[in-house]
Amino acid sequence: MKNVKLTIQYDGTCFSGWQKQKNQRTVQGELERVLSVLCSQKIEISGTSRTDAGVHACAQVANFKGIFSIPVENIKKAANGLLPRDIAILKAEEAADDFHARFSAIGKKYCYKIENSIDGSVFLKNYCCHVSKELNIHAMREAAANIVGTHDFKAFMSSSGNEPASTVRTVYGIKFNEYNGNKAEIGCGLGSSAKIIEIEVAGNGFLYNMVRIIAGTLIDAGTGKIKPSDIPEIIQSKERKNAGHTAPASGLYLKEIYFEEEELRRKLNDCR
Amino acid sequence: MKNVKLTIQYDGTCFSGWQKQKNQRTVQGELERVLSVLCSQKIEISGTSRTDAGVHACAQVANFKGIFSIPVENIKKAANGLLPRDIAILKAEEAADDFHARFSAIGKKYCYKIENSIDGSVFLKNYCCHVSKELNIHAMREAAANIVGTHDFKAFMSSSGNEPASTVRTVYGIKFNEYNGNKAEIGCGLGSSAKIIEIEVAGNGFLYNMVRIIAGTLIDAGTGKIKPSDIPEIIQSKERKNAGHTAPASGLYLKEIYFEEEELRRKLNDCR
Repeated sequence: MKNVKLTIQYDGTCFSGWQKQKNQRTVQGELERVLSVLCSQKIEISGTSRTDAGVHACAQVANFKGIFSIPVENIKKAANGLLPRDIAILKAEEAADDFHARFSAIGKKYCYKIENSIDGSVFLKNYCCHVSKELNIHAMREAAANIVGTHDFKAFMSSSGNEPASTVRTVYGIKFNEYNGNKAEIGCGLGSSAKIIEIEVAGNGFLYNMVRIIAGTLIDAGTGKIKPSDIPEIIQSKERKNAGHTAPASGLYLKEIYFEEEELRRKLNDCR
Repeated sequence: MKNVKLTIQYDGTCFSGWQKQKNQRTVQGELERVLSVLCSQKIEISGTSRTDAGVHACAQVANFKGIFSIPVENIKKAANGLLPRDIAILKAEEAADDFHARFSAIGKKYCYKIENSIDGSVFLKNYCCHVSKELNIHAMREAAANIVGTHDFKAFMSSSGNEPASTVRTVYGIKFNEYNGNKAEIGCGLGSSAKIIEIEVAGNGFLYNMVRIIAGTLIDAGTGKIKPSDIPEIIQSKERKNAGHTAPASGLYLKEIYFEEEELRRKLNDCR
């Protein structure tokens, strides 16, 4: 019995999210269809993160077990030949017997992309959240500093029907990157006043919609709707209505997943 | 009677091209629907270029005439509020009575984008043509130099049912830009070996599919399938089958349209 670990990239625009659903085009569904053909048996995969419709992944992780003849080193190329162009397997490797994409993960990093410009580019509709009002990045950084740490993040959770056992999570760090419109940008380049702001959020785990509510809250801090100094009170209130809006799915990217303490420590240095 | 000139940007991915068609989502159709609401009358627009399904525009031009009360300077904002996110009016201005987007144009520039990398990024599927074989850009430049000039480009035309009166066109210049994967790129950034190659082609006019066949021919020169020195013979043969393949629509961007000799001369200096 082999245990195969997959690292997967996808453009979430045309998927009804990760999780398999009847009569819906999902990432899990497409992967299982193709892997079942390659392995000549019904394959079921577990993914680390059940990303929502429209959310992208730079490096989602999944695993599956089975007894099959295709060598693991051939899976990537064979699967990519059969997969639709908006999913790609970046790596397929044999993992230890007890590796489980969901239960072995000890941390994740998401990236939220914002296009801050008067008129939003038509080409970024599915890849960034457009904010036309000029964002005060200093206020955003100040608000972010108040989010980092171990807190009960109930105020930053949408109700999903399944209440988690605990709503305490640790946000290890929040990092900002700013880019000006440049010519290599896909589409037609951005106007000279346009800016892409990336917010990288790393944590040991996230509640339902937590990253999108953090992003929405930081945007609200950037437009002046929320004061950075209000964040501790918002967290303490544990009331969803006190946090900012849920930023749209299209700006969210699942960026990295950590399975080893050492890797987590090393990568997090980039995030602080 | 006002004559309004519009400059329009669109992501062609989800459109069945520019030209209005029954029961199809088209750029012209969406614009006429919105402008008819704003002007309280049936508006018909003429566009300079009838781009195909999947082809993008950085700056398409169109015009329409009518007697209406909305001030021309208000059209951009009002229309963008009603248009879907994948079309935007960049500029709306009053033009001379005899201005016609199609008949007044004296030249155009297209840009063709290629992603040259072993594995194509899932995020560039609709925005670049992916070529996995390493392209020899020197051979591409050499081939391009043999395309520039005034020629009978019959070998670089797809049959569209409507044969043009003449198949002679002038290609003013072909310019190459190369970019390496960078972090501002939408999506997850490109691998370190990935490259975006842009081919800018300016001319006084283009036959049906001519830019895509030029791009396909230059790609074939880059992979060694066509020798740069074969180009003059290909042109002289006037046989479509001798030129390269028609590169996919998704890599093509209508970039600039010229209406004034002086503007054309000035802009073309960038393209040589």
